[in-house]
Amino acid sequence: MSSILGRIFRITTFGESHGPAVGAVVEGCPPGIRLVPSDIQAQLDRRRPGQSEANTPRSEEDRVRILSGVEGDITLGTPIALLVWNKDQNPSDYEDVRKIPRPSHADYAYRVKYGVQAQSGGGRASGRETVGRVAGGAVAEKMLRERYGVEIVAWVSRVGSVAAPEPDRSRISRVEVDATAVRCPDREAAAAMLELIREVKREGDSIGGIVSCVCRGAPAGWGEPVFGKVEALLAQAMLSIPAARGFDIGSGFGAALMRGLQHNDPFVRKGQRLGTLSNFSGGVQGGITNGEDIYFRVAFKPPASIRLPQKTADYEGRERELILKGRHDPCIVPRAVPVVEAMAALVLADLAMLQESRQRSSAS
Amino acid sequence: MSSILGRIFRITTFGESHGPAVGAVVEGCPPGIRLVPSDIQAQLDRRRPGQSEANTPRSEEDRVRILSGVEGDITLGTPIALLVWNKDQNPSDYEDVRKIPRPSHADYAYRVKYGVQAQSGGGRASGRETVGRVAGGAVAEKMLRERYGVEIVAWVSRVGSVAAPEPDRSRISRVEVDATAVRCPDREAAAAMLELIREVKREGDSIGGIVSCVCRGAPAGWGEPVFGKVEALLAQAMLSIPAARGFDIGSGFGAALMRGLQHNDPFVRKGQRLGTLSNFSGGVQGGITNGEDIYFRVAFKPPASIRLPQKTADYEGRERELILKGRHDPCIVPRAVPVVEAMAALVLADLAMLQESRQRSSAS
Amino acid sequence: MSSILGRIFRITTFGESHGPAVGAVVEGCPPGIRLVPSDIQAQLDRRRPGQSEANTPRSEEDRVRILSGVEGDITLGTPIALLVWNKDQNPSDYEDVRKIPRPSHADYAYRVKYGVQAQSGGGRASGRETVGRVAGGAVAEKMLRERYGVEIVAWVSRVGSVAAPEPDRSRISRVEVDATAVRCPDREAAAAMLELIREVKREGDSIGGIVSCVCRGAPAGWGEPVFGKVEALLAQAMLSIPAARGFDIGSGFGAALMRGLQHNDPFVRKGQRLGTLSNFSGGVQGGITNGEDIYFRVAFKPPASIRLPQKTADYEGRERELILKGRHDPCIVPRAVPVVEAMAALVLADLAMLQESRQRSSAS
Amino acid sequence: MSSILGRIFRITTFGESHGPAVGAVVEGCPPGIRLVPSDIQAQLDRRRPGQSEANTPRSEEDRVRILSGVEGDITLGTPIALLVWNKDQNPSDYEDVRKIPRPSHADYAYRVKYGVQAQSGGGRASGRETVGRVAGGAVAEKMLRERYGVEIVAWVSRVGSVAAPEPDRSRISRVEVDATAVRCPDREAAAAMLELIREVKREGDSIGGIVSCVCRGAPAGWGEPVFGKVEALLAQAMLSIPAARGFDIGSGFGAALMRGLQHNDPFVRKGQRLGTLSNFSGGVQGGITNGEDIYFRVAFKPPASIRLPQKTADYEGRERELILKGRHDPCIVPRAVPVVEAMAALVLADLAMLQESRQRSSAS
Repeated sequence: MSSILGRIFRITTFGESHGPAVGAVVEGCPPGIRLVPSDIQAQLDRRRPGQSEANTPRSEEDRVRILSGVEGDITLGTPIALLVWNKDQNPSDYEDVRKIPRPSHADYAYRVKYGVQAQSGGGRASGRETVGRVAGGAVAEKMLRERYGVEIVAWVSRVGSVAAPEPDRSRISRVEVDATAVRCPDREAAAAMLELIREVKREGDSIGGIVSCVCRGAPAGWGEPVFGKVEALLAQAMLSIPAARGFDIGSGFGAALMRGLQHNDPFVRKGQRLGTLSNFSGGVQGGITNGEDIYFRVAFKPPASIRLPQKTADYEGRERELILKGRHDPCIVPRAVPVVEAMAALVLADLAMLQESRQRSSAS
Repeated sequence: MSSILGRIFRITTFGESHGPAVGAVVEGCPPGIRLVPSDIQAQLDRRRPGQSEANTPRSEEDRVRILSGVEGDITLGTPIALLVWNKDQNPSDYEDVRKIPRPSHADYAYRVKYGVQAQSGGGRASGRETVGRVAGGAVAEKMLRERYGVEIVAWVSRVGSVAAPEPDRSRISRVEVDATAVRCPDREAAAAMLELIREVKREGDSIGGIVSCVCRGAPAGWGEPVFGKVEALLAQAMLSIPAARGFDIGSGFGAALMRGLQHNDPFVRKGQRLGTLSNFSGGVQGGITNGEDIYFRVAFKPPASIRLPQKTADYEGRERELILKGRHDPCIVPRAVPVVEAMAALVLADLAMLQESRQRSSAS
Repeated sequence: MSSILGRIFRITTFGESHGPAVGAVVEGCPPGIRLVPSDIQAQLDRRRPGQSEANTPRSEEDRVRILSGVEGDITLGTPIALLVWNKDQNPSDYEDVRKIPRPSHADYAYRVKYGVQAQSGGGRASGRETVGRVAGGAVAEKMLRERYGVEIVAWVSRVGSVAAPEPDRSRISRVEVDATAVRCPDREAAAAMLELIREVKREGDSIGGIVSCVCRGAPAGWGEPVFGKVEALLAQAMLSIPAARGFDIGSGFGAALMRGLQHNDPFVRKGQRLGTLSNFSGGVQGGITNGEDIYFRVAFKPPASIRLPQKTADYEGRERELILKGRHDPCIVPRAVPVVEAMAALVLADLAMLQESRQRSSAS
Repeated sequence: MSSILGRIFRITTFGESHGPAVGAVVEGCPPGIRLVPSDIQAQLDRRRPGQSEANTPRSEEDRVRILSGVEGDITLGTPIALLVWNKDQNPSDYEDVRKIPRPSHADYAYRVKYGVQAQSGGGRASGRETVGRVAGGAVAEKMLRERYGVEIVAWVSRVGSVAAPEPDRSRISRVEVDATAVRCPDREAAAAMLELIREVKREGDSIGGIVSCVCRGAPAGWGEPVFGKVEALLAQAMLSIPAARGFDIGSGFGAALMRGLQHNDPFVRKGQRLGTLSNFSGGVQGGITNGEDIYFRVAFKPPASIRLPQKTADYEGRERELILKGRHDPCIVPRAVPVVEAMAALVLADLAMLQESRQRSSAS
């Protein structure tokens, strides 16, 4: 297991999908940050299943409890333990799974790796694992907003063949994103996405998609070359999200098609600071933020859990037909939106503190 | 700085492009591995500039010296220090750079971050920094090959608009890759790529591209959920390479367009083990290897250093025209091939050792 | 904060003395270990206040709840979250403390460091913080016992001027240790210690002491030179315990007085393995276990919280007399015994797994 | 191996005693620090063998070369690689050692751990390994002095039965320490120590001792509870030094004998800040510096390499008499002085940067 992330602002997550609880411990959050449960609850509510017809009907209240690290609504600088009880478990749904590894799920790999197996097959390999990320990420986000004015907004930019036009990244808000059930700020594309998800759901199938994200307000100077570049840590954080298959930043994969003169972002004066005219770099140059908006994309595969019968093999290698019970998301990207935001916040919070570490504060 | 990577098999790299030397210390390599300088030199030679007309004419011998950790051609289990002297420096090429930050280069971000600036502008933000990665990666690769039979092969799959057809990933070899100057195993595509690079070079411009990579022979069970998933650590490692803009694994960004039934890899008996019929998962499920080939892509932007004049601003924000001197690669992807292989080897070596750590060996 | 310890077998602890809960997350415990709550509860009970007249009367039930990482009494290899609710809080006892920093307590240093202050003054700087250590250490101990047959036994070897004769380290058991209220296996010394503690308590003062510890059954080969030597990590672990002031291993500070010929441990055949005739090395040579018993001592200062009035200054520097309310231990060493055992187990569990990591198991 | 230390200011050391070179890479040193080779050389010269009759006659020039991270005598913020070539090797001295493990040396433990063995027996387990520590520590010290005015001075306070009276810790300087060959600032004790060392040397034996150290000028607020307390990290750092057997801070082991009222350090106004009247805490309360002098002791065993014949066993368990050739220190503590200073500097530099990380600097 590697359930700890970060060097200074660190998170440890825990919890099986079908155990008593899930949660996280945030270690290294600076003291003196105002933090109330609703700061965290808001993002947990956006992650929660059963919000719309696009999601699994599994119903969890997902109330977060802050167990430590905060007194009088102010962080103490000590570890912040966050707990969410599991309620709606139905392990009987997972009986077949003990004999037949679900295709493209973690069942088989977990069994080989660990030799034992959680009731639910994949154990930690479950969407429910992201509760801890979202809770911890909300703490990171609060710190970033309060101290640096950083804003992070993610949205769904593609579901299957339906791609949305790029919104104005400098203004897009969570209100606009949440205005549609699929969390795509473009109303027309959102409608088509919802239609597609309904169709896929009817068929008992699932569909992939892309989440885009922008981080505004990060000052120049964050990011730790060589191996801790902003894009490297974002890539790790995003590819660690269940079902993520790809990450690119700024021009991304499109950069492969471009020429240097076209791709280079010329410098230009922007008020008191130096800015760039274009922003193909996605706000990061040499692995370090340059003060422009950071933006990136995360590709998600179609959820592996589908209702359609699948021809596969059991653990003994015998051919079997698998029909999954249980409740599943036909498309994960709408619920992945707050998870992407959380992971971005965790990465930036850590890099912000690392950058402060090398400067002599006036206070000390 | 974050020039240390890994939890058990760890690498520390060092060295400025225009300082006395570059290198790496490999910490945590197991004892008893046969290691001779030529194991490392072979990959350094493939990374070296001046190999073909596709590269910068800067000429470095790049002889590696093993300073510690090996005796009688056998690793001791102690840190392996690897040193390469810098020889062909021409800092006078970088005079303008002290006044005008090169667009889409690290000059500006480094200056804001560190407050001081290396002679060459970006300091560690230089292709030369990858010497340490390649040297250390060669040690990781030797260990993986000797202990587990793992083979890693990367190649150029796209230069600008020229895309090569997917080769047979189960057989592709470095010999085939090196048969063309651009390191594309498809002869026809390779010719078109070379033509395009020549054209771009003539114009004083540069061009992006994609490197693909396959890792064969990794057993099922490597990878550390939650944050240390194979794809997460590969993504970090790849996005840490200078000029990398994107990473995807298996079906990658294409997964966003697919349906679950189509994307799921059915299990099937393969000799003594369970395998999958298709491999959209790219050899990784739930963040853990499943015994199938691991394959992924890395997108590179066009090099920021071009000979064409660029309109930009100096550090004071005054509009300036920048004309770069010095020697530059019009396209980085052919030389990125051994760097991608090195980073993949470093990630897998660490994950291999982490997986061993939880099993009780018969020896102890 | 640095509430995370270990490289592979890692623990994160959390919780303020006067917040809702304390606990720990054990990350990296191998799968397949039998683990039931009573494995943990036994050590928590030994740590609990109010067990004898030697302790503070604060009464906590300290029931541990396992929230994750275990199913059917078997570890899954996933994070094991351990929770203990706080019950008996009396923050009104701490009113004065907000104005006057308690001498030799953490109040002042915490306020300078964090700028904010927990209700109880020191926040995490409380004996209650050790609940998480003991809980997590019990998991480590179970793993070590089950896999390697390692046994860890600590005892009180000194209280103030009363020193106990060295017991037979090769046989001493927890039953013998717990036979006396002060956890000293020598009955005569134990009686004198108890007498001294009673006297000190009557006076409203406190007294220091020493805990000794032996770890039996660790095979040769554990320990990670250079900075991860057994004695280095034990020293860190022990000095991290509240009130610890010193650590020595084997001959320890006595080694300063010895000559080489006298101190060197000659090798001798012991059954199938090489052993040593004497064991001044304390089971560790060159930072690596040699198969002999590991033994060490930890010195504890007298608890800073005393009932006697103290002349000191308030935060403004004004001279004040401080009279502490609340319930306090006159001597901490009897309750430190399970904490020392826990920390030893955490260190050895991590080193055991690190040593496995470099060996190729037959299983993979 | 665990040859990396620190979280932000990190050091990686490398090099076998009888290989081509030893050295270190300092990763995470802040930019903008003035650093010239003589800053490092001064401490290497103090560590060097052959300085006086108290040391081994092995003669190494030990010239340090800075390979990276510094330009124009200013640190860049990038990794600082430090190299020292080995010159005076005589591996033929070590022939017997391949058959007979030296008592209380690392030979046996290394062979069991790693399965292979360096020419010199212990490989990294050699006093020569400390070259990298001293070189890296000198960089840490320069940073601490320049930024915070921290001064670190260590001295020999005991050799065998000869103990020196405690000097005035608030004034003791390296000049005073170096005034005697044994690095004891008390002239009378120094003479007796030298006499004892000569006697022991004549006999072919060796003798243990104690190094004391004071760190002045560290502000209040450094140290990372729970596991990264100042005393915990100092203890780890000190016990990682070859031949170290014990560590204590402030009142140390003496605290076990004391009562609370006597041991508690009352607060008192000291100029603008709060200070303490006594300093039994050794400058650290709750694991955090309180602005008073930090002082501690490190016990060293007598060197295991002696000229006297030793009865022991070979690797097959057969009884043998071992007579060691080669050049050995009869007493290590005089040369351990700069090593203790280096390790203290590395610990404090890291903690200083960690503390800055949580404060918002005005610069960013």
